[in-house]
Amino acid sequence: MEPLPESVSIREVGPRDGLQNEDPVPTDAKVRLIDALSATGVGRIEAVSFVHPKAIPQMADADEVWQRAAKPPRVRYSALVPNSRGAQRALAAGFTEIEVVVSASDTHNRRNVNRSTAESLDDIAALIALLHDAGARVEVIIATSFGCPYEGDIDPARVAGIVDRVRADGADRIAFGDTTGMGTPRRVRELLGAVRDRHADVPLLLHFHNTRGTGLANILAALELGVTEFDASVGGLGGCPYAPGASGNVATEEVVHMLHDMGIATGIDLEAMIEAAALAEEIVGRRLPSGVLRAGPRTRLV
Amino acid sequence: MEPLPESVSIREVGPRDGLQNEDPVPTDAKVRLIDALSATGVGRIEAVSFVHPKAIPQMADADEVWQRAAKPPRVRYSALVPNSRGAQRALAAGFTEIEVVVSASDTHNRRNVNRSTAESLDDIAALIALLHDAGARVEVIIATSFGCPYEGDIDPARVAGIVDRVRADGADRIAFGDTTGMGTPRRVRELLGAVRDRHADVPLLLHFHNTRGTGLANILAALELGVTEFDASVGGLGGCPYAPGASGNVATEEVVHMLHDMGIATGIDLEAMIEAAALAEEIVGRRLPSGVLRAGPRTRLV
Repeated sequence: MEPLPESVSIREVGPRDGLQNEDPVPTDAKVRLIDALSATGVGRIEAVSFVHPKAIPQMADADEVWQRAAKPPRVRYSALVPNSRGAQRALAAGFTEIEVVVSASDTHNRRNVNRSTAESLDDIAALIALLHDAGARVEVIIATSFGCPYEGDIDPARVAGIVDRVRADGADRIAFGDTTGMGTPRRVRELLGAVRDRHADVPLLLHFHNTRGTGLANILAALELGVTEFDASVGGLGGCPYAPGASGNVATEEVVHMLHDMGIATGIDLEAMIEAAALAEEIVGRRLPSGVLRAGPRTRLV
Repeated sequence: MEPLPESVSIREVGPRDGLQNEDPVPTDAKVRLIDALSATGVGRIEAVSFVHPKAIPQMADADEVWQRAAKPPRVRYSALVPNSRGAQRALAAGFTEIEVVVSASDTHNRRNVNRSTAESLDDIAALIALLHDAGARVEVIIATSFGCPYEGDIDPARVAGIVDRVRADGADRIAFGDTTGMGTPRRVRELLGAVRDRHADVPLLLHFHNTRGTGLANILAALELGVTEFDASVGGLGGCPYAPGASGNVATEEVVHMLHDMGIATGIDLEAMIEAAALAEEIVGRRLPSGVLRAGPRTRLV
């Protein structure tokens, strides 16, 4: 049995990645959700994305949401941007932690942004320069890192090559996205094996979807390899665009529940996170796929 | 990273443990489900239980179900019995693999059968003798091995003591039941650590519920400790009696999907198991909590 980390940093992505994949909700609701999350003790929140409102109407009010949200200084907030226009908006709003995305799968990248992976990598190099000039830090999220719904398996060496490239271009952080829940512990081991030694100095974050039930197993596999940063979405907000009705992001309260029982600290108040999940469920008006929201933590006795 | 087993034996428990925790379904449907499962390549099926029809109406037709089911010789079938009357019925029906249950939690055992754990262990000693005399093999399932919804944590030493006792009384096999999904990888490690060395010669089977999302993570933790036998329920049939709407057993197709991608053989045809899960969903008339049923395996591309 491998030793496990003593603590883990969770980034809550429900307000952005979660709500972006749900039917649009009112600005008020978004602000309430961010404020509830900010009070849970979570250290990081992906708050909004600055994308074109016609492309993603769910984020059309990003500026207002961000302006109205409480921003306690102990929480680090980040925003996702697709291009230089979005980057300028994020900087103007005061964000200093910015995420950009590229898909390891060429097909997936073309479907998403009508450009090849190589073209997007050129765009990202320019974005990193722009954002660094403004004093911001940049995380590159590599989508479909564990498999692509169009192409199937993605060679870990391809993902590692993208890491090499964006690191050379100045990326401050790397995230590996399991965009449609194709990851398994074997894929986690293979991908981390391919990148860990070459990039021991860069913070790596893993972003799992629970589409096929493997979310927490993948996190366990990553913990055993020393990974200490994970994305999670309150209540499991955010479905899977390729499989209507299927689960999306791992639910934050499920991740926290498992980690705490394993003696791994997160700084998060689990009961407060479960309350935030209940709020998220109320906001989107559909049953969210979180077992801990449904059944309560294991410590809640009959 | 720990080496993992090359193959795993799954016991399909949907027809018994699953359907026993759903609203009653017609005899025809049960036979269809068992027959579909028998054709998937799964090596073992828990087919029925011989319990009092007033206590568990879902199993009132156990004799007829078993009589009508196809029984290809490559599948091993088992039945669960609560007492000597049930044991006699199971033997008369031709079963040679029998399961009996006791809860590690005294409170849970009293709620289930109105007897203390110690009293049930005396009953089980007599049942083992009766069944051995008839040439059957006996598995003792220790429920609430990873926590009790009434008492909370269960000391692994208490579970280990129960193993000592039933082994001394002749139990041929031991199963640890995570009856209400309170297990986490930490609990798996602790329990196996407490029993493995003392009982290296007895087959151990783990039975997880996915009530709080940890089902596959627990299986991964157990695989890393060399466990090669798991229960699973097609489609995730069987809810959680303590949390209405919550998930019950781990879904067989989710377990098989993860294992196969990790290069661990099960002998099961995953697509056939997914078809059986669709049949299970049709039979119970409610949406089952299986991600692989919903989204398909990772190899099924858009």
